[in-house]
Amino acid sequence: MNKSILFSDITIVTPHDGAPVSIVEHAYCSVTGNKIVYVGTSKDEASEALKDASEVFQYDGKNKILCPTFANAHGHTPMSIFRNIADDRSLQDWLFGQIIPREDRMIADDFYYGNLLTLAEMIEGGTGCVANMYDGALLIAKGAVETGFRVQQTSMGKKCVDGKWSVDRTSVDELNSFIANEGKGLITHSLLVHSIYLYPEDFYKPLAELAKEYDLPVSVHISETITENDNCQKSYGCSPVQKLDWAGLLNDKTVAAHCVHLTPEDRKILADRKVWVAHNPSSNMKLASGFADMVNMQKDGVRLCIGSDGAASNNNQDMFMEMRLASFMAKGTTLDPTVLTAEDVFTMSTRNGYLACGFEDCGIIEQGMRADLQIIDYDCPQMWPLGNPLSALVYSCGPKCVESVMIDGQFVLYKHELKTIDMEKVKAETKKTMERLK
Amino acid sequence: MNKSILFSDITIVTPHDGAPVSIVEHAYCSVTGNKIVYVGTSKDEASEALKDASEVFQYDGKNKILCPTFANAHGHTPMSIFRNIADDRSLQDWLFGQIIPREDRMIADDFYYGNLLTLAEMIEGGTGCVANMYDGALLIAKGAVETGFRVQQTSMGKKCVDGKWSVDRTSVDELNSFIANEGKGLITHSLLVHSIYLYPEDFYKPLAELAKEYDLPVSVHISETITENDNCQKSYGCSPVQKLDWAGLLNDKTVAAHCVHLTPEDRKILADRKVWVAHNPSSNMKLASGFADMVNMQKDGVRLCIGSDGAASNNNQDMFMEMRLASFMAKGTTLDPTVLTAEDVFTMSTRNGYLACGFEDCGIIEQGMRADLQIIDYDCPQMWPLGNPLSALVYSCGPKCVESVMIDGQFVLYKHELKTIDMEKVKAETKKTMERLK
Repeated sequence: MNKSILFSDITIVTPHDGAPVSIVEHAYCSVTGNKIVYVGTSKDEASEALKDASEVFQYDGKNKILCPTFANAHGHTPMSIFRNIADDRSLQDWLFGQIIPREDRMIADDFYYGNLLTLAEMIEGGTGCVANMYDGALLIAKGAVETGFRVQQTSMGKKCVDGKWSVDRTSVDELNSFIANEGKGLITHSLLVHSIYLYPEDFYKPLAELAKEYDLPVSVHISETITENDNCQKSYGCSPVQKLDWAGLLNDKTVAAHCVHLTPEDRKILADRKVWVAHNPSSNMKLASGFADMVNMQKDGVRLCIGSDGAASNNNQDMFMEMRLASFMAKGTTLDPTVLTAEDVFTMSTRNGYLACGFEDCGIIEQGMRADLQIIDYDCPQMWPLGNPLSALVYSCGPKCVESVMIDGQFVLYKHELKTIDMEKVKAETKKTMERLK
Repeated sequence: MNKSILFSDITIVTPHDGAPVSIVEHAYCSVTGNKIVYVGTSKDEASEALKDASEVFQYDGKNKILCPTFANAHGHTPMSIFRNIADDRSLQDWLFGQIIPREDRMIADDFYYGNLLTLAEMIEGGTGCVANMYDGALLIAKGAVETGFRVQQTSMGKKCVDGKWSVDRTSVDELNSFIANEGKGLITHSLLVHSIYLYPEDFYKPLAELAKEYDLPVSVHISETITENDNCQKSYGCSPVQKLDWAGLLNDKTVAAHCVHLTPEDRKILADRKVWVAHNPSSNMKLASGFADMVNMQKDGVRLCIGSDGAASNNNQDMFMEMRLASFMAKGTTLDPTVLTAEDVFTMSTRNGYLACGFEDCGIIEQGMRADLQIIDYDCPQMWPLGNPLSALVYSCGPKCVESVMIDGQFVLYKHELKTIDMEKVKAETKKTMERLK
């Protein structure tokens, strides 16, 4: 049924490049293979676009919204195995007392099944793509392809022997090889430069060169906490943004998570370099990192997207909540209810996220784009009466209302049922992991 | 099946008066009529407690959490009919340009069905009680009793003739009469004193006397915005808290919504008078009112609960989100991740909310308390693996995971199906209302 599908009489809400988000009621959308071949209000034209299909599956759009899936621009997918075990603690205690000691004991299955568990949660919440910053690249990429989910996966690009770090092409080559041979167009690749505070200084420029040589984006955490900034000032006499820029690590493919504590000069550098900033509302509040100044970043022309961070610090992967919180935090901190509108955060969570993850033909419902779509059922008390569909998506909706999710033309969730993940196996394995790592 | 029920081998998470929140795995809970008659870990004792029942319905607790329903301490239930119609606007434009002109044209059905729509949403999100501040008291109370939902409903206590306001006992007497004759123990009563900014000064003391005469709590908005405070200073030379205290409107039954902008002296007055403060995280952020200082209120001994505010300014009634956001906002604004813990906000959203609404025997799972319970299904990616069940409820859970809701011993939601509300009728009527009031 996935080969050709006709979404009929549905409300389509979608961003566009260089034009406002559009809302079209009583619309039609035709999908063949993994591509959108028609979007508009003519049933005849929608059918005509599928005239060569052997079979056309009809999706009745009554009380439904069709919109792009979310692209979550900052995640650590295997961390679902650490869910709800270390809350209401200081960052120091949380990271060094609870998380890292467990991470040190992870085995291959933990990466593989932890990742699948998060992908399942993301799918149920309307997400179809994640920028994933974690070790275990091949295990994660393999699980994503099996699931039919898009991932921008980091590779390490380094090894550590006898306390001395060096650049390591092996992990980069291996992930490149996987992408070329088995990736099915679902996996993109970026180089991990975790943060100023975890990487030694003499390692920045070699990694920047490696990224350039392989034409890879760089994934990095920037200015998540005041402590990070203070220590960077002490060590290098400048901000993390300035230090990374000095090393040549900031460009139009870099995805920089957090960016909570920036100076106006930092914002200017990020805007000039066209860096993608991945805002993490829940994680930044829950870990008490602070409030990223999204309004001034937006004013300064910084490119913005939204992420959930890992399930150990959030503790769910609900992009509806992140999108809404991004707007709430901006309004609350500026005392201006007109900033970071529904349109802004919806675009950040969909089109911008896909661009940041390197999927140029996703995140917009237009002819020729990939069919990465979610169907929202608004026939429920939480979204009734609908009012403005864009407001409803941002301010009322939640995972409960996500009926179906299609990625690259394949239904991975169909009428609330996961189609490509064996949840019983995933649950059994991740429960074992949590108990083993106690 | 509602008369006697045995929840078996379930995880029970509940607050207690004067003791920490408890988490008991493999527990049993017996309910007869509208009361809890056993809670503990003995299957035999749980069965023995139901030995006189003609029939005992078994509820299998595998992968389930049993916890109290939420009591939402500040709502305007009919406002669901204004959902998603006026977002990203200034408070002035929102209230006076969009909401009030519509409210002026509301008819009886709008109050009745708007209220039912919100109760349906609340039930699906695990809420069993709301402090409701709105006109149409008898229509709302009637709908709540038909639904089997607890409401602390305001009555007006005033009339306005030729621009002159006077105390009006009629509305108070009518609601008291309804409660006595038809309330079924589900409705409590409070007197509306909307706010300093909407009520004339010479009206405060007569309303305080009326509340005293009838032994009624008072429901009021306090210091929601800086403008409210500034105008109060200009008019009266003091803060809204001080002015209301001068009038005798603050006592241990008063429910004060918002309290975003308080001085240390205001906090001391609220603590001394034992006022219930209803925090509204989403609404305060979305309308850009600011961040209530919950941490210092808690330190000063102010009694705290949590509300959603109306669906016109939130725009959903998800107490999981409000509970989580209360914790997030406190952590984010203080830069301390250890404040307003899962335990704090869970107690505020359950036991404290019921006490604020005047339901003394709800909000705790103990023998002798009313059976106001929700069953959470954690057999889903969003809550798996469970980890700490209390953390999971606060930081991972959402309406999607609410399987069943029991109020006063009656299932109002059973395995995701609303049992007491005719949703087709409610949807049709509220859609008509939204279109009529455009």
